[in-house]
Amino acid sequence: MSQAVASTPTPMVEPQTAPSEPERQRYRLVVAYDGTNFHGWQKQKTEAGVWLRTVQGELEVAVMAAVQQPVRLIGASRTDSGVHALGQVAQFDAATRIPVCRLADAINARLEEDVEVVSAAKVPPKFDAISGARAKQYRYRILCSRRRALHLRNYVYRCWWKLDVEAMNAAAQILVGEHDFTGFCAAGSPRLSNVRTVFACAAEAGEPPNEIHIVISGNGFLYNMVRIIAGTLVEVGRGAMPVAQVAQALAEKNRRLAGPTMPPEGLWLEWVRY
Amino acid sequence: MSQAVASTPTPMVEPQTAPSEPERQRYRLVVAYDGTNFHGWQKQKTEAGVWLRTVQGELEVAVMAAVQQPVRLIGASRTDSGVHALGQVAQFDAATRIPVCRLADAINARLEEDVEVVSAAKVPPKFDAISGARAKQYRYRILCSRRRALHLRNYVYRCWWKLDVEAMNAAAQILVGEHDFTGFCAAGSPRLSNVRTVFACAAEAGEPPNEIHIVISGNGFLYNMVRIIAGTLVEVGRGAMPVAQVAQALAEKNRRLAGPTMPPEGLWLEWVRY
Repeated sequence: MSQAVASTPTPMVEPQTAPSEPERQRYRLVVAYDGTNFHGWQKQKTEAGVWLRTVQGELEVAVMAAVQQPVRLIGASRTDSGVHALGQVAQFDAATRIPVCRLADAINARLEEDVEVVSAAKVPPKFDAISGARAKQYRYRILCSRRRALHLRNYVYRCWWKLDVEAMNAAAQILVGEHDFTGFCAAGSPRLSNVRTVFACAAEAGEPPNEIHIVISGNGFLYNMVRIIAGTLVEVGRGAMPVAQVAQALAEKNRRLAGPTMPPEGLWLEWVRY
Repeated sequence: MSQAVASTPTPMVEPQTAPSEPERQRYRLVVAYDGTNFHGWQKQKTEAGVWLRTVQGELEVAVMAAVQQPVRLIGASRTDSGVHALGQVAQFDAATRIPVCRLADAINARLEEDVEVVSAAKVPPKFDAISGARAKQYRYRILCSRRRALHLRNYVYRCWWKLDVEAMNAAAQILVGEHDFTGFCAAGSPRLSNVRTVFACAAEAGEPPNEIHIVISGNGFLYNMVRIIAGTLVEVGRGAMPVAQVAQALAEKNRRLAGPTMPPEGLWLEWVRY
């Protein structure tokens, strides 16, 4: 009331209070993709300086377009060219007014049909997609068929032979636990330690019919480790390798005793847990 | 005996009888393919004279390499770019010693993984893959999902809306029988007659889950007819078109009253009967 009777009239304009800036925040995305037409997860360019189509690259651009600021996107697993993901995890920091429940839609609107943000969440600033990962699960899909895998050819490995699932599971059990997996990783992958813990490893048959899936979870995987394990179990399954040789490859850390590296298209990253 | 006592001895060499030439024969192939990476069935080159990758083109080359002679391959249906087939039928004439039970393998050995000869058979010379076809069945796969069809994106049409399958079936029934389908074909397709008989047309829900399939069989289909029928039934299913309008489009032969032409990737040629 006292202001209402002030002698000098004030102009009828709201005081210009600056809108509060949104706080910088860490976000976690769960991402699914069909790896067929990507050069893997990791951003890269050719020697000629041409950027290749990668999931990280496409997703980072889409996130930047959604939140309208520079963003650095980090993924939990650097999947290879042709490898698929149902539950890849990625993180980025941004200050945005987009409500987190709308963030996935906002990013997806800028993505092609072979990659999708499944969900987005705010996480504490100490969240680390790479070092914070406690467990990951991969699935290697094998289609046992003499006929072509016409419409599945980019999503399964087609196996000509009949596979003995029991023998495969006997071999798979050898790999469970904490081991030095030097025998089951690509030569020359530079790691401080090749010791990893496999929580579970099994060959599952029957669903979908004609398919055998090698499902493996662990606290981390060396370069090509899942594909080499899959190749080893297929050798056992088709009777070309005794189960004992798997134990030997593990004990002797001898890559030559393990099976071949299977092609990427059968490999699926299922989830990452923190 | 009279020759055995001939005065001049004959050399001990078998008489050189020419091996009997294999007879020229007509063959029928059942062919399956993933249409994603083909420019449709029919052989074609660009204006610049570059041959495009087509199923007919690849298959003809593979057949010629198998039977080692020039071959002209004729297909029952000229499927568009992106359209798939489980049971396309093709014919060719050749004189070959390859047993018919080995012919599919011999051709497949020369084909990439996205096309396959399912079976091969000898047929009478009067067999005609095009004019002899008595019935064909197509399937249009619709995935009802707000999420992306990551690994199915080349094999289904993804539909954002919820579809009323009962209404779609009511509309589908209108199309069954002998009709002039001018209202349901692409403008300017040059045919003597647009009268065709649809034997059955139905929208099937449930298997696989979230998918609705429009299954249609008939004695022949006009250009884009199945895709326009699918587009019309989707309009009815999402409540954007009354069922009566389908009858009107048919009766008035009015393309504008029918629904949009659906994209090719959802379309599958299932079989051709003779």
